[in-house]
Amino acid sequence: MKPVEDCVIGIVGLGLMGGAIAMALRKSGAAPAGRLMACDTSAETLALALESGVIDRGFESPEKMIPCCDLVFLCLNPSTLIRFWNQWMPAFKPGTLITDIAGIKGPIVEALEHNLRGDLDFIPGHPMAGSEKGGFANAAACGFTGKNYILTPLARNRPENLEFIRNLIYRMGFGRITETSPASHDRKIAFTSQLCHVIAAALIDCEPDTEITRFGGGSFEDLTRIAMLNAPMWTELFIGNKQELLKRIGQFEGSLEALKTLIASEAAGELESRLAAVRDRRMKMNG
Amino acid sequence: MKPVEDCVIGIVGLGLMGGAIAMALRKSGAAPAGRLMACDTSAETLALALESGVIDRGFESPEKMIPCCDLVFLCLNPSTLIRFWNQWMPAFKPGTLITDIAGIKGPIVEALEHNLRGDLDFIPGHPMAGSEKGGFANAAACGFTGKNYILTPLARNRPENLEFIRNLIYRMGFGRITETSPASHDRKIAFTSQLCHVIAAALIDCEPDTEITRFGGGSFEDLTRIAMLNAPMWTELFIGNKQELLKRIGQFEGSLEALKTLIASEAAGELESRLAAVRDRRMKMNG
Repeated sequence: MKPVEDCVIGIVGLGLMGGAIAMALRKSGAAPAGRLMACDTSAETLALALESGVIDRGFESPEKMIPCCDLVFLCLNPSTLIRFWNQWMPAFKPGTLITDIAGIKGPIVEALEHNLRGDLDFIPGHPMAGSEKGGFANAAACGFTGKNYILTPLARNRPENLEFIRNLIYRMGFGRITETSPASHDRKIAFTSQLCHVIAAALIDCEPDTEITRFGGGSFEDLTRIAMLNAPMWTELFIGNKQELLKRIGQFEGSLEALKTLIASEAAGELESRLAAVRDRRMKMNG
Repeated sequence: MKPVEDCVIGIVGLGLMGGAIAMALRKSGAAPAGRLMACDTSAETLALALESGVIDRGFESPEKMIPCCDLVFLCLNPSTLIRFWNQWMPAFKPGTLITDIAGIKGPIVEALEHNLRGDLDFIPGHPMAGSEKGGFANAAACGFTGKNYILTPLARNRPENLEFIRNLIYRMGFGRITETSPASHDRKIAFTSQLCHVIAAALIDCEPDTEITRFGGGSFEDLTRIAMLNAPMWTELFIGNKQELLKRIGQFEGSLEALKTLIASEAAGELESRLAAVRDRRMKMNG
C-alpha cells in the first residue's frame, strides 16, 4: 500500500460516522486536497460536504467513484451495506483496501467474506463513537479523540494493510484499538452498547410525562440521552445481534431482580454491600 | 426574617452537599465573612473547610452552634437526620428557619413534622445535584448552576420564609424550583433518580469483566457513572422509598420485556416505531 497521503479515499455514506471520518481524515492531513471523495444518495449532503471543504468530489451513485479508490470506508447501516457489497463488489479496483463501521460484526463479516474478490482486502472495523444527533450536519460533534476502535481482522488480511489501518485509526484521533473475533465483538458490544440503548429506550418508554425532567438531577438525563436514537439503525443492530443481546438482557434482568428482592425485603446490610461492590467494580473500570 | 446577609447560617453535615451549599452561600455573597458556620463529626473536614475559607467557624458537636443560627441547612442522610432532629430540636433558637436536603421526603417530613416546635419553621427541600465523588473534598465539583430544586412546603410554613428560601436557592445558582407534595416528590424521584441508580448498579452487577470498557463508546460509561454511588446513603434512599421504587422498577421491567419480545420475534417494523416514539418523547424532554 502506498502512503495514505497518496491514496484516493472514498467514503460510501456521508451520515454521522461517514461524515466524521471524512472530517478526521481531512483534518489530520491523511487526506490532502484532491484525494477525498464520497458518495451519498442525498445531493444536499454532498453539496454541504463539498462547500465546507470536507470532501473534494461527491457522487450520487458509487459507479464512477469506486473504481478510482485505493481505500474505501463503507459507512452504511448493516442491511444497506450488504446490498451495496453484493451490487458493487465487481467495481472495485484490484488491490483496494476496504473497511466498514457496522456496529455488529458476525453477520456482516459472514455476508461480505463469502462474496469477496481475491484481489481485494477487507478489514472489518467498528469505531466506538457516535452521537444522539445523527446525519452529516452533526458529524463535527462526533469526537474521536481518545475513543476506542475495534477491528475484527480476517485471517486473509495482509499484515501491511492491517498496520496501515491501525496507523490511520490513531491518526484520526482514536485512543485504543482492540482486535478480536467478530463473535467476541458481538458478545461485548451487546453489553456495552446495545443493552445500554435498550435500557435507555425502556426508561423513556415507561414514563409518558415529559415534564418529569423538572425532577431530574443529571442521572436521568445521562441514562436516557442515547434514547434519542436512530430508530432504523438500532432496529437492525438489535435484531442483527439478537441472540447475544437477549442473553445480555436476561443477565441484566437477573441483577435487577436481585436488587429488587433486597429492596423489597429491606435487607439493608446485604443491599449496602452489593452496592459497595458495584461501586468498587465501576471505579476499576474508570471510563 | 432579616436579610440573609445578616443571618447566622449553620450547616449540619459538611459532606458533598453540605459542602457545596456552604460554598455556594459564600460565593454568592449570601453568607458574608463571619456568618457561616458548620458542624461535622470529622475534625479533618472542619479544618479543611476553615482553611479554605468556606466556613467561619466549625463545631464537632451541634451543641454550641445550633442556638446561634437564624437559618440551618440539615445536610444528613435520612436516618442520621431523624436522629439529629429528635436529639437537637430543643436547642434551636425561636424563629429559626430550617431546611433539609434529603432525597426522600415522605418519611422525613412525617418524622420531622410530628416533632416540630411551634416556634420553628421547617421547609423541606431537595437540591437535584450531586456527584459520584462524595465528601467535602469533592464539593466544589458539585455544580448547582441551572439545576432543579424541589421544595415540599408544609401548610404551616410562613409565606415570607418560603419566599426567603426561594430567593436563596436561585442565588445559589439553581435554575428551577418545583413545589409539590412529599408524596408526589417521592413518586417522581423514584423514577428520575432512584430507578436510574438501581439500573446503573444492576448493569455493573451483571458484568464481572472490568476490561469490558475496551468495548465502550460512551453509552456504557454514561449509564454507569452513577454506579459509583455512596452505598450507605443509597441503601437508605432505596429502602426509604421502597413502595414507589418497586412500582417504578416494575414499570421499567414491563417496558424492557416488551422491547425484548419485539427483538426476539424480529418484529422490525413494530420495534422501529416504538424506538422512534421513544426518540420523539426524549427529544421533547430535552434535558
